[in-house]
Amino acid sequence: MPDNKAVVKTGNEKSISPAVIKRLPRYYRYLGDLLKNDVVRISSKELSQRMNVTASQIRQDLNNFGGFGQQGYGYNVEYLYNEMGKILGLDRTNNIIIVGAGNLGQALANNQDFDSNGFKIIGLFDVNPRLIGMTVRGVEVYDIDMLETFLKEHEVMIAALTLPKSKAVKVAEQLVDLGIKALWNFAPVDLHFSEDILVENVHLAESIMTLSYRIHSQNQ
Amino acid sequence: MPDNKAVVKTGNEKSISPAVIKRLPRYYRYLGDLLKNDVVRISSKELSQRMNVTASQIRQDLNNFGGFGQQGYGYNVEYLYNEMGKILGLDRTNNIIIVGAGNLGQALANNQDFDSNGFKIIGLFDVNPRLIGMTVRGVEVYDIDMLETFLKEHEVMIAALTLPKSKAVKVAEQLVDLGIKALWNFAPVDLHFSEDILVENVHLAESIMTLSYRIHSQNQ
Repeated sequence: MPDNKAVVKTGNEKSISPAVIKRLPRYYRYLGDLLKNDVVRISSKELSQRMNVTASQIRQDLNNFGGFGQQGYGYNVEYLYNEMGKILGLDRTNNIIIVGAGNLGQALANNQDFDSNGFKIIGLFDVNPRLIGMTVRGVEVYDIDMLETFLKEHEVMIAALTLPKSKAVKVAEQLVDLGIKALWNFAPVDLHFSEDILVENVHLAESIMTLSYRIHSQNQ
Repeated sequence: MPDNKAVVKTGNEKSISPAVIKRLPRYYRYLGDLLKNDVVRISSKELSQRMNVTASQIRQDLNNFGGFGQQGYGYNVEYLYNEMGKILGLDRTNNIIIVGAGNLGQALANNQDFDSNGFKIIGLFDVNPRLIGMTVRGVEVYDIDMLETFLKEHEVMIAALTLPKSKAVKVAEQLVDLGIKALWNFAPVDLHFSEDILVENVHLAESIMTLSYRIHSQNQ
Protein backbone atom coordinates (compact mmCIF):
# COMPACT_ATOMS: atom_id res chain seq x y z
CA MET A 1 0.00 0.00 0.00
CA PRO A 2 1.55 3.32 -0.95
CA ASP A 3 2.08 5.68 1.94
CA ASN A 4 0.35 8.84 0.85
CA LYS A 5 0.11 10.42 4.26
CA ALA A 6 2.96 12.78 3.55
CA VAL A 7 1.22 14.01 0.43
CA VAL A 8 -2.07 14.41 2.22
CA LYS A 9 -0.54 16.68 4.80
CA THR A 10 1.38 19.05 2.56
CA GLY A 11 -1.48 21.51 2.51
CA ASN A 12 -1.96 21.03 -1.21
CA GLU A 13 -5.68 20.97 -0.54
CA LYS A 14 -5.78 24.73 -0.58
CA SER A 15 -5.55 24.77 -4.36
CA ILE A 16 -8.11 22.03 -4.87
CA SER A 17 -11.17 23.17 -6.77
CA PRO A 18 -14.51 23.53 -4.96
CA ALA A 19 -16.05 21.04 -7.41
CA VAL A 20 -13.59 18.35 -6.32
CA ILE A 21 -14.15 19.19 -2.65
CA LYS A 22 -17.90 18.85 -3.09
CA ARG A 23 -17.41 15.35 -4.51
CA LEU A 24 -15.24 14.05 -1.65
CA PRO A 25 -18.09 13.34 0.80
CA ARG A 26 -19.81 11.32 -1.89
CA TYR A 27 -16.72 9.13 -2.34
CA TYR A 28 -16.63 8.75 1.42
CA ARG A 29 -20.28 7.68 1.50
CA TYR A 30 -19.85 5.10 -1.28
CA LEU A 31 -16.69 3.72 0.26
CA GLY A 32 -18.49 3.43 3.61
CA ASP A 33 -21.29 1.46 1.95
CA LEU A 34 -18.78 -0.84 0.23
CA LEU A 35 -17.02 -1.40 3.55
CA LYS A 36 -20.31 -2.30 5.24
CA ASN A 37 -20.87 -4.86 2.47
CA ASP A 38 -17.41 -6.35 3.13
CA VAL A 39 -15.96 -5.28 -0.23
CA VAL A 40 -12.17 -5.36 0.19
CA ARG A 41 -11.01 -3.79 -3.05
CA ILE A 42 -12.56 -2.06 -6.03
CA SER A 43 -11.32 -0.93 -9.44
CA SER A 44 -11.86 2.66 -10.50
CA LYS A 45 -14.06 1.25 -13.29
CA GLU A 46 -16.35 -0.57 -10.84
CA LEU A 47 -16.46 2.41 -8.50
CA SER A 48 -17.24 4.71 -11.43
CA GLN A 49 -20.17 2.52 -12.49
CA ARG A 50 -21.63 2.55 -9.01
CA MET A 51 -21.15 6.30 -8.60
CA ASN A 52 -22.25 7.17 -12.12
CA VAL A 53 -19.13 9.24 -12.87
CA THR A 54 -16.26 8.41 -15.22
CA ALA A 55 -13.32 6.31 -14.01
CA SER A 56 -11.06 9.06 -15.27
CA GLN A 57 -12.80 11.60 -13.04
CA ILE A 58 -12.30 9.35 -10.01
CA ARG A 59 -8.61 8.95 -10.79
CA GLN A 60 -8.20 12.69 -11.36
CA ASP A 61 -10.05 13.58 -8.17
CA LEU A 62 -8.05 11.16 -6.04
CA ASN A 63 -4.78 12.22 -7.66
CA ASN A 64 -5.28 15.60 -6.02
CA PHE A 65 -4.46 13.83 -2.78
CA GLY A 66 -1.72 11.56 -4.06
CA GLY A 67 -3.66 8.80 -5.78
CA PHE A 68 -4.28 5.82 -3.46
CA GLY A 69 -4.71 3.30 -6.29
CA GLN A 70 -2.32 0.59 -7.45
CA GLN A 71 -2.13 -0.39 -11.10
CA GLY A 72 -3.87 -3.73 -11.63
CA TYR A 73 -5.13 -3.86 -8.04
CA GLY A 74 -7.52 -0.95 -7.83
CA TYR A 75 -8.34 0.65 -4.52
CA ASN A 76 -8.21 -0.96 -1.11
CA VAL A 77 -11.63 0.07 0.18
CA GLU A 78 -10.87 0.30 3.90
CA TYR A 79 -7.62 2.18 3.35
CA LEU A 80 -9.20 4.64 0.93
CA TYR A 81 -12.19 5.13 3.24
CA ASN A 82 -9.91 5.91 6.17
CA GLU A 83 -7.68 8.22 4.14
CA MET A 84 -10.70 10.02 2.76
CA GLY A 85 -11.97 10.40 6.33
CA LYS A 86 -8.67 11.99 7.34
CA ILE A 87 -8.79 14.36 4.37
CA LEU A 88 -12.31 15.38 5.39
CA GLY A 89 -11.19 15.88 8.99
CA LEU A 90 -13.52 13.13 10.22
CA ASP A 91 -10.80 11.30 12.14
CA ARG A 92 -11.10 13.97 14.83
CA THR A 93 -14.12 14.92 16.90
CA ASN A 94 -15.71 18.05 15.51
CA ASN A 95 -17.87 19.62 18.19
CA ILE A 96 -20.95 21.39 16.88
CA ILE A 97 -23.46 23.71 18.44
CA ILE A 98 -26.84 24.43 16.89
CA VAL A 99 -28.26 27.89 17.31
CA GLY A 100 -32.01 27.73 16.79
CA ALA A 101 -33.69 24.73 18.42
CA GLY A 102 -36.88 24.69 16.31
CA ASN A 103 -37.79 21.81 14.01
CA LEU A 104 -34.77 22.21 11.80
CA GLY A 105 -32.30 22.47 14.69
CA GLN A 106 -33.92 19.43 16.28
CA ALA A 107 -33.81 17.57 12.97
CA LEU A 108 -30.04 18.15 12.83
CA ALA A 109 -29.62 17.08 16.45
CA ASN A 110 -31.59 13.90 15.70
CA ASN A 111 -29.62 13.04 12.57
CA GLN A 112 -27.52 10.02 13.41
CA ASP A 113 -25.43 10.34 10.25
CA PHE A 114 -23.40 13.01 11.95
CA ASP A 115 -22.30 10.91 14.96
CA SER A 116 -20.76 8.20 12.86
CA ASN A 117 -18.72 10.78 10.98
CA GLY A 118 -16.88 12.42 13.85
CA PHE A 119 -19.38 15.22 14.37
CA LYS A 120 -20.66 15.69 17.90
CA ILE A 121 -23.50 18.02 18.69
CA ILE A 122 -22.84 19.30 22.19
CA GLY A 123 -25.46 21.99 22.64
CA LEU A 124 -28.53 23.64 21.19
CA PHE A 125 -29.39 27.27 21.87
CA ASP A 126 -32.63 29.18 21.63
CA VAL A 127 -34.46 32.22 22.94
CA ASN A 128 -37.75 30.37 23.39
CA PRO A 129 -38.39 29.56 27.08
CA ARG A 130 -40.54 26.59 26.06
CA LEU A 131 -37.52 24.97 24.37
CA ILE A 132 -34.83 25.92 26.88
CA GLY A 133 -34.07 23.03 29.25
CA MET A 134 -35.43 20.29 27.02
CA THR A 135 -33.08 17.73 25.54
CA VAL A 136 -32.86 16.35 22.02
CA ARG A 137 -31.19 12.93 21.89
CA GLY A 138 -29.51 13.80 25.17
CA VAL A 139 -28.30 17.22 24.02
CA GLU A 140 -29.57 20.12 26.11
CA VAL A 141 -31.22 23.27 24.77
CA TYR A 142 -29.60 26.27 26.48
CA ASP A 143 -30.67 29.87 26.71
CA ILE A 144 -28.92 31.77 23.94
CA ASP A 145 -27.60 34.13 26.64
CA MET A 146 -25.39 31.22 27.75
CA LEU A 147 -23.46 31.20 24.46
CA GLU A 148 -20.46 33.16 25.70
CA THR A 149 -20.02 31.04 28.84
CA PHE A 150 -20.54 27.83 26.90
CA LEU A 151 -17.98 28.73 24.24
CA LYS A 152 -15.40 29.56 26.93
CA GLU A 153 -15.86 26.11 28.43
CA HIS A 154 -16.08 24.03 25.25
CA GLU A 155 -14.06 23.79 22.10
CA VAL A 156 -16.61 24.24 19.33
CA MET A 157 -15.57 23.70 15.73
CA ILE A 158 -18.81 24.53 13.92
CA ALA A 159 -21.93 26.53 14.72
CA ALA A 160 -25.05 25.60 12.78
CA LEU A 161 -27.47 28.49 12.27
CA THR A 162 -31.05 27.27 12.12
CA LEU A 163 -32.61 30.62 12.83
CA PRO A 164 -35.02 32.93 11.06
CA LYS A 165 -33.38 35.23 8.53
CA SER A 166 -34.11 38.26 10.71
CA LYS A 167 -31.90 36.96 13.52
CA ALA A 168 -29.24 35.05 11.63
CA VAL A 169 -26.88 37.91 10.75
CA LYS A 170 -26.72 39.31 14.30
CA VAL A 171 -26.22 35.90 15.89
CA ALA A 172 -23.58 34.98 13.30
CA GLU A 173 -21.65 38.16 14.12
CA GLN A 174 -21.90 37.36 17.82
CA LEU A 175 -20.59 33.82 17.23
CA VAL A 176 -17.67 35.10 15.18
CA ASP A 177 -16.86 37.64 17.91
CA LEU A 178 -16.83 34.76 20.38
CA GLY A 179 -14.27 32.89 18.28
CA ILE A 180 -16.32 30.59 16.04
CA LYS A 181 -14.49 30.02 12.75
CA ALA A 182 -17.00 27.94 10.80
CA LEU A 183 -20.69 28.55 10.26
CA TRP A 184 -23.12 26.07 8.77
CA ASN A 185 -25.82 28.45 7.71
CA PHE A 186 -29.41 27.39 7.03
CA ALA A 187 -30.89 30.91 7.11
CA PRO A 188 -31.80 32.33 3.69
CA VAL A 189 -29.23 35.11 3.89
CA ASP A 190 -25.62 35.53 2.81
CA LEU A 191 -23.13 36.05 5.62
CA HIS A 192 -20.17 38.26 4.92
CA PHE A 193 -17.05 37.82 7.03
CA SER A 194 -13.32 37.93 6.48
CA GLU A 195 -11.74 35.01 4.63
CA ASP A 196 -10.68 33.10 7.74
CA ILE A 197 -14.33 32.59 8.69
CA LEU A 198 -15.72 29.65 6.74
CA VAL A 199 -19.38 29.68 5.78
CA GLU A 200 -21.19 26.71 4.26
CA ASN A 201 -24.73 27.53 3.20
CA VAL A 202 -27.69 25.20 2.95
CA HIS A 203 -30.31 27.38 1.31
CA LEU A 204 -33.36 25.14 1.16
CA ALA A 205 -35.56 27.62 -0.69
CA GLU A 206 -32.88 27.96 -3.38
CA SER A 207 -32.58 24.22 -3.71
CA ILE A 208 -36.29 23.78 -4.35
CA MET A 209 -36.33 26.73 -6.75
CA THR A 210 -33.61 25.03 -8.78
CA LEU A 211 -35.84 21.97 -8.94
CA SER A 212 -38.83 24.10 -9.92
CA TYR A 213 -36.77 25.71 -12.68
CA ARG A 214 -35.83 22.28 -14.03
CA ILE A 215 -39.47 21.10 -13.95
CA HIS A 216 -40.82 24.10 -15.80
CA SER A 217 -38.02 24.52 -18.32
CA GLN A 218 -38.47 20.84 -19.21
CA ASN A 219 -42.18 21.36 -19.78
CA GLN A 220 -41.71 24.30 -22.10
CA MET B 1 -39.21 48.10 -21.05
CA PRO B 2 -38.05 45.41 -23.48
CA ASP B 3 -40.47 42.56 -23.99
CA ASN B 4 -38.37 39.50 -23.31
CA LYS B 5 -41.23 37.16 -22.72
CA ALA B 6 -40.91 35.58 -26.15
CA VAL B 7 -37.26 34.85 -25.47
CA VAL B 8 -38.00 33.40 -22.06
CA LYS B 9 -40.45 30.93 -23.50
CA THR B 10 -38.43 29.57 -26.39
CA GLY B 11 -37.15 26.68 -24.32
CA ASN B 12 -33.57 27.93 -24.51
CA GLU B 13 -33.24 27.10 -20.83
CA LYS B 14 -32.48 23.52 -21.64
CA SER B 15 -28.96 24.33 -22.68
CA ILE B 16 -28.25 26.55 -19.69
CA SER B 17 -25.44 25.33 -17.48
CA PRO B 18 -26.20 23.94 -14.01
CA ALA B 19 -23.94 26.61 -12.49
CA VAL B 20 -26.11 29.39 -13.93
CA ILE B 21 -29.28 27.61 -12.83
CA LYS B 22 -27.94 27.33 -9.28
CA ARG B 23 -27.38 31.10 -9.22
CA LEU B 24 -30.89 32.06 -10.36
CA PRO B 25 -32.60 31.62 -6.97
CA ARG B 26 -29.98 33.89 -5.41
CA TYR B 27 -30.77 36.65 -7.92
CA TYR B 28 -34.40 36.13 -7.12
CA ARG B 29 -33.72 36.44 -3.38
CA TYR B 30 -31.69 39.65 -3.78
CA LEU B 31 -34.24 41.18 -6.11
CA GLY B 32 -36.99 40.32 -3.62
CA ASP B 33 -35.05 42.06 -0.86
CA LEU B 34 -34.52 45.14 -3.05
CA LEU B 35 -38.22 45.20 -3.87
CA LYS B 36 -39.12 45.04 -0.17
CA ASN B 37 -36.84 48.02 0.37
CA ASP B 38 -38.63 49.93 -2.39
CA VAL B 39 -35.65 49.99 -4.74
CA VAL B 40 -37.05 50.70 -8.23
CA ARG B 41 -34.00 50.16 -10.39
CA ILE B 42 -30.43 48.97 -9.99
CA SER B 43 -27.34 48.91 -12.17
CA SER B 44 -25.51 45.63 -12.75
CA LYS B 45 -22.57 47.23 -10.90
CA GLU B 46 -24.62 47.96 -7.79
CA LEU B 47 -26.25 44.55 -7.90
CA SER B 48 -22.85 42.91 -8.31
CA GLN B 49 -21.49 44.70 -5.25
CA ARG B 50 -24.40 43.58 -3.11
CA MET B 51 -24.21 40.02 -4.37
CA ASN B 52 -20.43 39.81 -4.31
CA VAL B 53 -20.14 38.60 -7.91
CA THR B 54 -18.82 40.48 -10.94
CA ALA B 55 -21.11 42.74 -12.96
CA SER B 56 -20.00 40.85 -16.05
CA GLN B 57 -21.20 37.58 -14.53
CA ILE B 58 -24.60 39.08 -13.81
CA ARG B 59 -24.90 40.36 -17.38
CA GLN B 60 -23.79 37.00 -18.78
CA ASP B 61 -26.16 35.04 -16.54
CA LEU B 62 -29.14 37.22 -17.40
CA ASN B 63 -28.26 37.21 -21.11
CA ASN B 64 -29.07 33.48 -21.08
CA PHE B 65 -32.67 34.56 -20.72
CA GLY B 66 -32.63 37.50 -23.05
CA GLY B 67 -31.02 40.21 -20.94
CA PHE B 68 -33.58 42.40 -19.14
CA GLY B 69 -31.26 45.38 -18.73
CA GLN B 70 -31.31 48.67 -20.59
CA GLN B 71 -28.09 50.52 -21.33
CA GLY B 72 -27.74 53.49 -19.00
CA TYR B 73 -30.81 52.54 -16.99
CA GLY B 74 -29.85 49.27 -15.40
CA TYR B 75 -32.48 46.80 -14.30
CA ASN B 76 -36.03 47.54 -13.32
CA VAL B 77 -36.16 45.61 -10.02
CA GLU B 78 -39.83 44.64 -10.01
CA TYR B 79 -39.81 43.64 -13.66
CA LEU B 80 -36.65 41.55 -13.29
CA TYR B 81 -37.96 39.98 -10.06
CA ASN B 82 -41.18 38.96 -11.78
CA GLU B 83 -39.42 37.67 -14.89
CA MET B 84 -36.98 35.71 -12.74
CA GLY B 85 -39.96 34.27 -10.86
CA LYS B 86 -41.48 33.12 -14.16
CA ILE B 87 -38.21 31.54 -15.25
CA LEU B 88 -38.07 29.67 -11.94
CA GLY B 89 -41.68 28.55 -12.36
CA LEU B 90 -42.74 30.44 -9.23
CA ASP B 91 -45.63 32.22 -10.97
CA ARG B 92 -47.60 28.97 -10.75
CA THR B 93 -48.58 27.03 -7.67
CA ASN B 94 -46.26 24.07 -7.20
CA ASN B 95 -47.94 21.53 -4.97
CA ILE B 96 -45.59 19.59 -2.75
CA ILE B 97 -45.98 16.52 -0.59
CA ILE B 98 -43.50 15.59 2.11
CA VAL B 99 -42.88 11.91 2.72
CA GLY B 100 -41.45 11.49 6.21
CA ALA B 101 -43.11 13.65 8.87
CA GLY B 102 -40.30 13.59 11.43
CA ASN B 103 -38.42 16.72 12.52
CA LEU B 104 -37.04 17.44 9.08
CA GLY B 105 -40.36 16.94 7.30
CA GLN B 106 -42.02 19.17 9.89
CA ALA B 107 -39.26 21.74 9.51
CA LEU B 108 -39.99 21.94 5.79
CA ALA B 109 -43.74 22.17 6.41
CA ASN B 110 -43.12 25.00 8.87
CA ASN B 111 -40.82 26.94 6.55
CA GLN B 112 -42.73 30.02 5.47
CA ASP B 113 -40.23 30.85 2.73
CA PHE B 114 -41.84 28.28 0.52
CA ASP B 115 -45.36 29.76 0.64
CA SER B 116 -44.31 33.12 -0.64
CA ASN B 117 -42.56 31.52 -3.58
CA GLY B 118 -45.45 29.62 -5.11
CA PHE B 119 -44.77 26.36 -3.29
CA LYS B 120 -47.69 24.83 -1.43
CA ILE B 121 -47.27 21.88 0.87
CA ILE B 122 -50.52 19.94 0.65
CA GLY B 123 -49.76 16.78 2.58
CA LEU B 124 -47.29 14.99 4.83
CA PHE B 125 -47.02 11.20 4.90
CA ASP B 126 -45.60 8.84 7.48
CA VAL B 127 -45.80 5.29 8.75
CA ASN B 128 -45.71 6.32 12.41
CA PRO B 129 -49.21 6.07 13.99
CA ARG B 130 -48.25 8.75 16.51
CA LEU B 131 -47.73 11.26 13.68
CA ILE B 132 -50.64 10.26 11.43
CA GLY B 133 -53.61 12.58 11.90
CA MET B 134 -51.66 15.48 13.39
CA THR B 135 -51.35 18.72 11.46
CA VAL B 136 -48.32 20.92 10.84
CA ARG B 137 -49.26 24.51 10.06
CA GLY B 138 -52.65 23.23 8.93
CA VAL B 139 -51.23 20.47 6.74
CA GLU B 140 -52.33 16.96 7.69
CA VAL B 141 -50.06 13.98 8.21
CA TYR B 142 -51.54 11.01 6.32
CA ASP B 143 -50.80 7.32 6.51
CA ILE B 144 -48.27 6.50 3.82
CA ASP B 145 -50.73 3.87 2.57
CA MET B 146 -52.89 6.77 1.42
CA LEU B 147 -50.27 7.96 -1.12
CA GLU B 148 -51.85 6.36 -4.16
CA THR B 149 -55.33 7.69 -3.42
CA PHE B 150 -53.97 11.12 -2.56
CA LEU B 151 -51.95 11.38 -5.77
CA LYS B 152 -55.01 10.43 -7.83
CA GLU B 153 -56.96 13.27 -6.25
CA HIS B 154 -54.28 15.98 -6.21
CA GLU B 155 -51.87 17.34 -8.75
CA VAL B 156 -48.50 17.10 -7.03
CA MET B 157 -45.45 18.67 -8.64
CA ILE B 158 -42.73 17.71 -6.16
CA ALA B 159 -42.32 15.02 -3.51
CA ALA B 160 -39.84 15.79 -0.73
CA LEU B 161 -38.19 12.72 0.76
CA THR B 162 -37.37 13.22 4.42
CA LEU B 163 -37.01 9.56 5.24
CA PRO B 164 -34.26 7.33 6.59
CA LYS B 165 -31.86 6.05 3.95
CA SER B 166 -33.17 2.51 4.39
CA LYS B 167 -36.65 3.49 3.19
CA ALA B 168 -35.90 6.26 0.73
CA VAL B 169 -35.15 4.21 -2.39
CA LYS B 170 -38.27 2.06 -2.12
CA VAL B 171 -40.56 5.02 -1.43
CA ALA B 172 -38.97 7.01 -4.26
CA GLU B 173 -39.65 4.15 -6.67
CA GLN B 174 -43.23 3.97 -5.46
CA LEU B 175 -43.68 7.72 -5.98
CA VAL B 176 -42.26 7.55 -9.50
CA ASP B 177 -44.57 4.62 -10.30
CA LEU B 178 -47.45 6.78 -9.11
CA GLY B 179 -46.49 9.52 -11.53
CA ILE B 180 -44.27 11.88 -9.52
CA LYS B 181 -41.75 13.58 -11.82
CA ALA B 182 -39.63 15.55 -9.35
CA LEU B 183 -38.03 14.40 -6.10
CA TRP B 184 -36.48 16.66 -3.51
CA ASN B 185 -34.32 14.13 -1.75
CA PHE B 186 -32.95 14.65 1.76
CA ALA B 187 -31.98 11.00 2.34
CA PRO B 188 -28.23 10.29 2.14
CA VAL B 189 -28.56 8.08 -0.92
CA ASP B 190 -28.41 8.61 -4.68
CA LEU B 191 -31.61 7.92 -6.56
CA HIS B 192 -31.30 6.53 -10.06
CA PHE B 193 -34.19 7.03 -12.44
CA SER B 194 -34.62 7.73 -16.12
CA GLU B 195 -33.82 11.24 -17.34
CA ASP B 196 -37.39 12.53 -17.22
CA ILE B 197 -37.45 12.12 -13.43
CA LEU B 198 -35.80 15.13 -11.83
CA VAL B 199 -33.94 14.65 -8.57
CA GLU B 200 -32.59 17.49 -6.46
CA ASN B 201 -30.49 16.31 -3.53
CA VAL B 202 -29.93 18.04 -0.21
CA HIS B 203 -27.30 15.85 1.40
CA LEU B 204 -26.77 17.45 4.80
CA ALA B 205 -23.99 15.12 5.90
CA GLU B 206 -22.08 15.93 2.71
CA SER B 207 -22.54 19.64 3.26
CA ILE B 208 -21.05 19.52 6.75
CA MET B 209 -18.20 17.27 5.56
CA THR B 210 -17.33 19.88 2.96
CA LEU B 211 -17.16 22.43 5.77
CA SER B 212 -15.06 20.07 7.88
CA TYR B 213 -12.68 19.59 4.95
CA ARG B 214 -12.28 23.34 4.60
CA ILE B 215 -11.64 23.76 8.34
CA HIS B 216 -8.98 21.09 8.51
CA SER B 217 -7.25 21.81 5.21
CA GLN B 218 -6.94 25.43 6.34
CA ASN B 219 -5.31 24.36 9.59
CA GLN B 220 -2.69 22.19 7.95
